[in-house]
Amino acid sequence: MLIQFLEHIKKFTEFEQEDFCRVQDYFDMEMYHKKDIILSAGSKCNCNYYVLEGCLHMYFTGENGIDRTVQFAIENWWMTDNLAYQKGETTDFNIQAVENTTLLKITAGRQEKLLREFPALETYFRKIYEIAYGASLMKKKYIFDYSKEEMYYHFTKSFPQFAQRVPQYLIASFLGLTPEYVSEIRAKKRS
Amino acid sequence: MLIQFLEHIKKFTEFEQEDFCRVQDYFDMEMYHKKDIILSAGSKCNCNYYVLEGCLHMYFTGENGIDRTVQFAIENWWMTDNLAYQKGETTDFNIQAVENTTLLKITAGRQEKLLREFPALETYFRKIYEIAYGASLMKKKYIFDYSKEEMYYHFTKSFPQFAQRVPQYLIASFLGLTPEYVSEIRAKKRS
Repeated sequence: MLIQFLEHIKKFTEFEQEDFCRVQDYFDMEMYHKKDIILSAGSKCNCNYYVLEGCLHMYFTGENGIDRTVQFAIENWWMTDNLAYQKGETTDFNIQAVENTTLLKITAGRQEKLLREFPALETYFRKIYEIAYGASLMKKKYIFDYSKEEMYYHFTKSFPQFAQRVPQYLIASFLGLTPEYVSEIRAKKRS
Repeated sequence: MLIQFLEHIKKFTEFEQEDFCRVQDYFDMEMYHKKDIILSAGSKCNCNYYVLEGCLHMYFTGENGIDRTVQFAIENWWMTDNLAYQKGETTDFNIQAVENTTLLKITAGRQEKLLREFPALETYFRKIYEIAYGASLMKKKYIFDYSKEEMYYHFTKSFPQFAQRVPQYLIASFLGLTPEYVSEIRAKKRS
């Protein structure tokens, strides 16, 4: 299962298989059941998570008591509260397993050591974050250009793997729609 | 003026002053007047920009013809359409000078060479993008938790340098408010 992590690294930077054995030692592999909480709001955010299998979502509970999803992570995606992680602070976000999930976990201190031992991984993470940030700018454009209904179709067409795997109420939460509104759009499509 | 770029690098990674002379050769310094367009939607996005002095904003023109700002950059901030830049594609965004602006410009090809010559700069860019991405997640939380009025106050309190320098209609555009609404909030505050 770990070979997929090496393959993902090699998509972004040159990396030798023989070095990868030492990389693995920096990580813990953990398994979670669907709905398990991996990170809780109010706790110190000291870890970064890489999904080997399954799906996570990161969300916060608004002042009105409603949960709102800000990102998903499926296979080969990283997830943490990056600001809190970089500063070693407490987080306002929760991370929860959407499905049974196997992940690689690394602490901030170990990631620093890992990057010192393998500078090629700086390139890997730089590209990962550059893409993530670029995508967040592009999402702002979609929100502005698309109606709520178009947003939903654009999302489910662009990321069909989510539409099939993730419960509708979480997609609704991520897009800022009510679950009722999503049911309405889907019913309209079927009719 | 370039010394501020070295100081900014040293905030995030160890870097020697004697190496910095060679770093400078990778960049062109350019000066723009207020309202000059630096990057146009529909053109190839091949450059990354670092602001030495002045202010830029990145925006797109929506299908309804209205311009919408997605990010600002003042001194020591980087700006480009990261997705298009990484893939060498055309951009949907424009970058414009909000004030008279002096910047450092680097092409994607030269940045690749720069990073190969100075791997310490991979750490610099990794941290820059990690913060930018983390901040974009946090902004989603603010949008949800705050009323439009609170959003405006939170922004102007958190970034007073923007509130003083950037025209109100651009702050309104960035926050997704109408200029009329911002005038109303400001009038209410004064009364």
